[in-house]
Amino acid sequence: MYEVEVKVPADHGDVRDALESAGAERGETVEQVDTYYDAPHRDFAETDEALRVRRVTDDEGERARITYKGPKVDSESKAREEVETGVEDGADAGAIFEGVGFTPAATVEKTRTYYAYDGYTVVLDDVSGLGQFVEVERESEDVEAAREGAFDVLRRLGLDPSDQIRASYLGLLLE
Amino acid sequence: MYEVEVKVPADHGDVRDALESAGAERGETVEQVDTYYDAPHRDFAETDEALRVRRVTDDEGERARITYKGPKVDSESKAREEVETGVEDGADAGAIFEGVGFTPAATVEKTRTYYAYDGYTVVLDDVSGLGQFVEVERESEDVEAAREGAFDVLRRLGLDPSDQIRASYLGLLLE
Repeated sequence: MYEVEVKVPADHGDVRDALESAGAERGETVEQVDTYYDAPHRDFAETDEALRVRRVTDDEGERARITYKGPKVDSESKAREEVETGVEDGADAGAIFEGVGFTPAATVEKTRTYYAYDGYTVVLDDVSGLGQFVEVERESEDVEAAREGAFDVLRRLGLDPSDQIRASYLGLLLE
Repeated sequence: MYEVEVKVPADHGDVRDALESAGAERGETVEQVDTYYDAPHRDFAETDEALRVRRVTDDEGERARITYKGPKVDSESKAREEVETGVEDGADAGAIFEGVGFTPAATVEKTRTYYAYDGYTVVLDDVSGLGQFVEVERESEDVEAAREGAFDVLRRLGLDPSDQIRASYLGLLLE
């Protein structure tokens, strides 16, 4: 299974209206604060790796996860090793990484609202310092068909797939 | 508050009998597997630091914690920075540390049985590759008095405080 994800910058007002007229099912809204760490012994930007502490706040309180993303295995599929686990306390997890020599490099803060629409997850992201984005994503074995379907969802929401941005929010913030 | 802890090597059979005759309250028995990691950029043995993933199995299943121990702040009190947090999955936490460049250096496996006795916690440790030990510990503001009290508990259990071993199980295993 591959995660197919298409992201465009877009004001949320019209998209929200379009989603609601189309009968999309609104899910939860969460706050996500991602802290990315630099390693003391190699340059993660160069090795294409990432170490992240994600703190998510929703109606039920705060929970946190730590994630390691390894370099892409091959350029075609964009597949990469990814390991993550929940942690009791995100601040303590960060302090442990700092204790052993890592340094916080960048923080990405966003408010995400999820919608379920026609087999896709549509995510309305409001990212501090970057603005509003819409992501359309699903898991699929057939990457091409899923991407075409995501483009179609964007069009039905009044958006233009050719506005697609491939950079991560972290990448955009560091630009 | 200081953690005062005295440890001696001792067969558990007689100690268990002595604890039961003395009316000590038996607590839980757990399996602990501690994996210590080497850093890629500095020698933790030299800097007196440690990074550990502890996996504890008891009647309720497995749980895990990650812990960073910083160097001793001063030699007198043995105080050191210690940060820890629970993790959902100990194996994944280890894989994250390995992903970012740490290597498993040593594993300490033990079965611990806890007793409460006269204000102290008495721990019967059976350590793979090292044998059986008895630890007597408590938290106290008065380190000297607590240590004398722990020696007294050992004597009442038929043990000799002068057998005390100050090295950690990790230290003993690496010797």
